Amino acid sequence: MTAPIDRTRRPFVIEEAIAILARTPSTLDALLRGLPVSWTQAHEGGETWSPFDVMGHLIHGEQTDWMPRAKIILAHGDARAFDKFDRLAQFTASVGRTLPELLEDFARLRQANLRELGSLNLTDADLDRLGRHPELGVVSLRQLLATWVAHDLDHIVQISRALARQYSDEVGPWRAYLRIISGTQG
Amino acid sequence: MTAPIDRTRRPFVIEEAIAILARTPSTLDALLRGLPVSWTQAHEGGETWSPFDVMGHLIHGEQTDWMPRAKIILAHGDARAFDKFDRLAQFTASVGRTLPELLEDFARLRQANLRELGSLNLTDADLDRLGRHPELGVVSLRQLLATWVAHDLDHIVQISRALARQYSDEVGPWRAYLRIISGTQG
Repeated sequence: MTAPIDRTRRPFVIEEAIAILARTPSTLDALLRGLPVSWTQAHEGGETWSPFDVMGHLIHGEQTDWMPRAKIILAHGDARAFDKFDRLAQFTASVGRTLPELLEDFARLRQANLRELGSLNLTDADLDRLGRHPELGVVSLRQLLATWVAHDLDHIVQISRALARQYSDEVGPWRAYLRIISGTQG
Repeated sequence: MTAPIDRTRRPFVIEEAIAILARTPSTLDALLRGLPVSWTQAHEGGETWSPFDVMGHLIHGEQTDWMPRAKIILAHGDARAFDKFDRLAQFTASVGRTLPELLEDFARLRQANLRELGSLNLTDADLDRLGRHPELGVVSLRQLLATWVAHDLDHIVQISRALARQYSDEVGPWRAYLRIISGTQG
């Protein structure tokens, strides 16, 4: 007998991670390019982020987070902590930029990073190597790369939610059925 | 002085709704086409839906929900309740289909529905027209169309979350920072 397949967890396989990471720029381009600015600058209130803000954050991640941290692990292991990531960098870096420019920057940076990641030909032993996160402590290269994937998807969720909630009132009684508006994750 | 712009709510504008609805097929195509079946059939456990299941649900919505209900409102107002929507239709309709086929069916049906919606040249008075939902009671055409938009985005969230949660264990300590995995909407 074959064991039932667990459909709720996938082991980390670098080719699969790269397949998902490679799709994020075109997914966000399809979702956002050409939408009115009133939508791409919309947010969920207070200090929450708009799609435009998220794009700047993703760009900053390509520049300072994922591949730079992978290279710190490969060069120094956990002897050197990662540089702290600036979660608010986009609020200065994106000033005066347009959304199409951010979409193009992100696509270009992501493509270059994935090319470099592929060229490292990481082995399972490499993926087991440890690094040091300034707050979370010891982490592995595998965990860093898995987080890169989940982080992309988290921000696709955030952008979709910021857009949908613009119609929180317009949907009327359907609000009860829409988890994205009612706030339940269901 | 100009009043500060509310960035958390947009009034329903049909051209804007159509702009978002038109982007969903290409967004889902960019996100899903070519991913391994082990990912597109992945889900969040129990009775939750995989990306493949969601695509079938979106197709069924194009066939039986949004435009058919809009036409019931325009023809009968609230004198005739909408037909009940079958939330589980995809579990029979998608049997034997492939994900690329579903992506193509969805794109084709959506394009035809938006063409028909545009051809109705709906006025504000039309959007105010009332219909009757079998469970929610009286609703307006405007609310139906706003819900179509939010529903698309809700399912983009669901698909992204089902994918990300496959790495719930692989992300290690980063789990605490990833709202998509920890389950907070943040």
